[in-house]
Amino acid sequence: MITIAVDAMGGDQAPRPEVEGSVLAAREFGVRVMLVGRPDAIRAELARHAAPNLPIEVVEASEVITMEDHPAQAFRRKKNSSVHVAARLVHDGRADAMVSSGNTGAVMTTARFILGTLAAVDRLALAAPLPNAKGGVTVLLDVGANVDSKPEHLVQFAVMGEIYYRAAFGARRPRLGLLSIGEEEMKGNELTREVNNRLKNLPIHFIGNVEGGELFSGKVDVVVCDGFVGNIALKISESLAMEIFGLLKKALKSSISSQLGYLFSRKAFRGLKKHIDYSEYGGAPLLGVRGVCVIGHGRSDANAVKNAIRVAAGLTRAKINEKIEQELAAVPVSV
Amino acid sequence: MITIAVDAMGGDQAPRPEVEGSVLAAREFGVRVMLVGRPDAIRAELARHAAPNLPIEVVEASEVITMEDHPAQAFRRKKNSSVHVAARLVHDGRADAMVSSGNTGAVMTTARFILGTLAAVDRLALAAPLPNAKGGVTVLLDVGANVDSKPEHLVQFAVMGEIYYRAAFGARRPRLGLLSIGEEEMKGNELTREVNNRLKNLPIHFIGNVEGGELFSGKVDVVVCDGFVGNIALKISESLAMEIFGLLKKALKSSISSQLGYLFSRKAFRGLKKHIDYSEYGGAPLLGVRGVCVIGHGRSDANAVKNAIRVAAGLTRAKINEKIEQELAAVPVSV
Repeated sequence: MITIAVDAMGGDQAPRPEVEGSVLAAREFGVRVMLVGRPDAIRAELARHAAPNLPIEVVEASEVITMEDHPAQAFRRKKNSSVHVAARLVHDGRADAMVSSGNTGAVMTTARFILGTLAAVDRLALAAPLPNAKGGVTVLLDVGANVDSKPEHLVQFAVMGEIYYRAAFGARRPRLGLLSIGEEEMKGNELTREVNNRLKNLPIHFIGNVEGGELFSGKVDVVVCDGFVGNIALKISESLAMEIFGLLKKALKSSISSQLGYLFSRKAFRGLKKHIDYSEYGGAPLLGVRGVCVIGHGRSDANAVKNAIRVAAGLTRAKINEKIEQELAAVPVSV
Repeated sequence: MITIAVDAMGGDQAPRPEVEGSVLAAREFGVRVMLVGRPDAIRAELARHAAPNLPIEVVEASEVITMEDHPAQAFRRKKNSSVHVAARLVHDGRADAMVSSGNTGAVMTTARFILGTLAAVDRLALAAPLPNAKGGVTVLLDVGANVDSKPEHLVQFAVMGEIYYRAAFGARRPRLGLLSIGEEEMKGNELTREVNNRLKNLPIHFIGNVEGGELFSGKVDVVVCDGFVGNIALKISESLAMEIFGLLKKALKSSISSQLGYLFSRKAFRGLKKHIDYSEYGGAPLLGVRGVCVIGHGRSDANAVKNAIRVAAGLTRAKINEKIEQELAAVPVSV
């Protein structure tokens, strides 16, 4: 049985959604869950669910990393944090994968140092699954595990992202694009021109440069970029979607007739919100670590936690790391 | 009287919105307009408006640059294009400013070579005004006039963007932010760390690094980044907003009750669409050229063209280039 260590103290509402999501996952996916954090708080939440026979274990961690903590400092100073203990469980082989909705920087730093990096991997990459207009998912990576990446790093991100897409979304031959500012291969900056050149020679379905406008079009499955650009792209997308929904809500409350309109159309809104809701897509895996690490949004609800556990279990089952090692070993050092 | 040369052949629907927008602008803003392009097509459109006494002149240009044309090739080969002729009118002092909704790359290349660059400016910057959640405008620059910028270029973009914001949006002391991946000054890539350091020492209201999520929050007025990042940010924002509206429309047509809901709430939707509609904000000025050049969206309607002319006239009146020369001269070469 696959075992997932869940950081129960990570998200903004912790440990409530973490515990509920774990109960749902244990029930639906047949996985074992180790809930890591403050036992009293976790048990109080567990008591709210009828879950006596589920394979859920509570593992004590006395410290909590907050969203305000500095990642490297938190890693050094809070050795008993729930993130730290969850990573140790994976490192020691007691769990196959870890899931956290905590401080993304701290989770990445902790996973990088405690789990370590796969032999074939030079740099980890954080991969964000985003809903697209075709009703599918487009994965963007790296969204912030690195800044100032070199061409060979982006090539590795491409290979890892492609393997993740196959494992998580079932596409046999995902279309991979390089985020740039023009579709022609000579368009872009120094980095993308070099990376374009290298990706052309790999045995993947590389469709060339894609512009920012393609991220949500559904015409590409995996989009590769450096972590600086990817992080900005991700944050802009999240905030713009939130702002538009916020403005919409305000507009709909602005008159009696539009309020009435809202009553009639709210089912349609909910459907739309569900489609663009990050929580359906199961968090962002940190690719390239030994073991599996999936990072959820700080705002994760129980459904988001459940789906992150599903993805972590799926990547474990798919032996994603063996595939990464094999396929990266086949990439020429200088393509 | 301020004279604006309008590329009548640039946009996707040209010359209809260009002519209508020019008629509206001549009527409302007391500017003179030179409509540049194919005289027959322009006059046919002009005949649809009761505009015999307006200060509108038709200037012949026999060639048209399409969206598919390669910018540098179009510049070299189509010397009689409407973009080329409009730029010549500004260069020769017959017009104060040019407005085009054509191929952005071709307009930038043509303006750069024909108008030339201000003495104090090393690199031009394209500045995009974006609606924010507070009902105001946030300007993002550079959105694609350059790739691979150096720190001194971003410092110049900051100074130019700040002057443009004051001239176009009336803020006395706009808040300027540097687009990066963390608010602390040491966060970011090599480029942003160096630029942050230099901007701190300028006499502008620099609020430090801002993350992607702040672009639409209304907490910052001018956001500086390199052209690669800015172009991707702009295209993602445009396409995401379009996709959400598309999905919304689809969702609202999905049932009788939601269709009814739409009928009651469509005024609210229109208000929202107007708020996030690029056409209200008057196109993107190419900052740093001798003369004024405002580039509209290819999808520009008459209202967008009218507003682009308003902005071009306003920047001319505000003597934006004199201010750029003065203020850049005061920036230490190595801050």
